Amino acid sequence: MSNDERTVADLLDRQAIHDVVLRYCRGIDRRDFELVRSCYHPDGIDHHTGFDGSVDEYLAWVRPKLEELEGTMHHLGNHLVELYGDLAISETYATNVHWGHPEIGAFTSGARFVDLMERRDGRWAIKERWAVREWTRSDTGRMIAPEAPGPRGTHGESDLVYTLRERVSGLL
Amino acid sequence: MSNDERTVADLLDRQAIHDVVLRYCRGIDRRDFELVRSCYHPDGIDHHTGFDGSVDEYLAWVRPKLEELEGTMHHLGNHLVELYGDLAISETYATNVHWGHPEIGAFTSGARFVDLMERRDGRWAIKERWAVREWTRSDTGRMIAPEAPGPRGTHGESDLVYTLRERVSGLL
Amino acid sequence: MSNDERTVADLLDRQAIHDVVLRYCRGIDRRDFELVRSCYHPDGIDHHTGFDGSVDEYLAWVRPKLEELEGTMHHLGNHLVELYGDLAISETYATNVHWGHPEIGAFTSGARFVDLMERRDGRWAIKERWAVREWTRSDTGRMIAPEAPGPRGTHGESDLVYTLRERVSGLL
Repeated sequence: MSNDERTVADLLDRQAIHDVVLRYCRGIDRRDFELVRSCYHPDGIDHHTGFDGSVDEYLAWVRPKLEELEGTMHHLGNHLVELYGDLAISETYATNVHWGHPEIGAFTSGARFVDLMERRDGRWAIKERWAVREWTRSDTGRMIAPEAPGPRGTHGESDLVYTLRERVSGLL
Repeated sequence: MSNDERTVADLLDRQAIHDVVLRYCRGIDRRDFELVRSCYHPDGIDHHTGFDGSVDEYLAWVRPKLEELEGTMHHLGNHLVELYGDLAISETYATNVHWGHPEIGAFTSGARFVDLMERRDGRWAIKERWAVREWTRSDTGRMIAPEAPGPRGTHGESDLVYTLRERVSGLL
Repeated sequence: MSNDERTVADLLDRQAIHDVVLRYCRGIDRRDFELVRSCYHPDGIDHHTGFDGSVDEYLAWVRPKLEELEGTMHHLGNHLVELYGDLAISETYATNVHWGHPEIGAFTSGARFVDLMERRDGRWAIKERWAVREWTRSDTGRMIAPEAPGPRGTHGESDLVYTLRERVSGLL
C-alpha cells in the first residue's frame, strides 16, 4: 500500500487492532484473565513455546505459570498491520520481563506476537496467534528492591488503573 | 467501548495525550526541564518512588538525580487510554535505562506511567501522575563503550533533535 | 503546535512516517535488504556508529555485520514527529538486541533514530538518518535456550509474517 492510499478508516482499524494486543498485555500483567479471553474470538487458537491449543486451553496453561511469578511486564513496541478487509495480519514486538520466580529469579524474553485478526460484527479479535520467540535472557541475581516506598503495581482490581477508573467515574 | 464506536475525534485525543507522555520523556532525557514542566498543568501532582508533591517540587527533586548520571533513556511502549470527556486515564509502559552513575554504574527500571489527564482550553496535560514501579535491575559492570565514533546524544539545545529543527527551518 | 491544531491529515502523515521506521526494522531483523532500501530515497544518507555514507554503501556495510549474528530485534518505542510540509523530523527510540555473535555472544544497544524524512510524489522516505547511540550493554553469557519447541523467527521469506500473508491471500 502506498502512503497516499491510506485512509482514516485504516487508522481506525489499526488502532482497534492494536488495542486488542494492548488489552491482552494488560490482562496478562494484571492477571485479569477475562480481559485476556476477550482478546480472542471464542474459537481462537494460540501457539506459544511449549503450547498449541484453544484460547480456553491457553488460559488453563498460562495461568499457573504466571501465578508462580511475582510479576510480569509485557512491553510492546513495533506494530505493523496489513489489512485485508475483515482479516488482518498484525505483528507486534514484545520485550517481556518476568520477575520473582522462586527458583530462577528473573528472566526476559523477546518475542513477536504474530496475529491473524478477524473482524466479526464490527469487533476485531484474535483468530489465531503465534508468539514467535526471538531470544531469552537470564536476569538471575540482578533484580534489586526499590530504594523507597512509592506507587507499585498489583494484580486484579486493586491496581491503580482500575481504582483510578472508579475515582474518575465519581467525578463525572 | 466497542471498536466500532471509536471516532476520529478519539484518535486525535489519544494522539494528543500520547504526545504529552512523549514530550515528558524527551524533556527528562534531554534535561529540558521547561519541556517537562509543560507536560503538567500548573497545579499538577506527581507521585514517584520516594516522592509525592507538586510539579515544581518534582522538578527540584528529580533534577539533581538526573544530573549525577551520564544519561537516561525512557523507552515507552504500551499506551492504553480511556477517554471521559475532558478527563482521561492514560497508562504507558516504560523501560528506563540509567547509565554513568558514579557509584552503581547503570540500572534499568520498568514502570507504568498512570496519568490522570485533563483538557483545559483545548490542551491536554497531566493533572496527577503515578509512576508505578514494577521492577529494577542492576546493570552494574555491564555497560561498554561504543566501538567507533558516530552520532551521540547530548543534553540541552545541542542535541540533534534541536539542531536539526534549526536546519529544517532554514530550508523552508 | 497546540493540541487542537492537529488535523486528521497530520495523523495520516505521522502514521506514514512511522511505517517507514517500522518497515526499516522489519527489513533489518528479517534481513530483507530490499525492504530496508525502500525506506530511503535513492539519494538517502545514513550515519551510524562507525559509518557515514549513501544508502547503498550502508547496505554493503551493515549486511555482513548482521550475517555474523544469529538474530537481531530492533524494538521501537517513543515516536515524536514534527511536520514541516513535505519535510519532517522524526525521532524514534530503539532498544536493539543482538544475539548469537560468535565471539561476544550477545549485546543490546539503546539508540534514537533521528530521521529527516521527505515526501516525494506522495511517498515519505528517509532523506538523511542519524542512528544516535545512547548506551551499549554486554549480555555475554546471559542468553538461554528456549525451554520447549514453539514458533521461532527466521530470516527471509520463510518467516511467519511472510508465509501468513500467502495464507491470508488464499482466503480472500
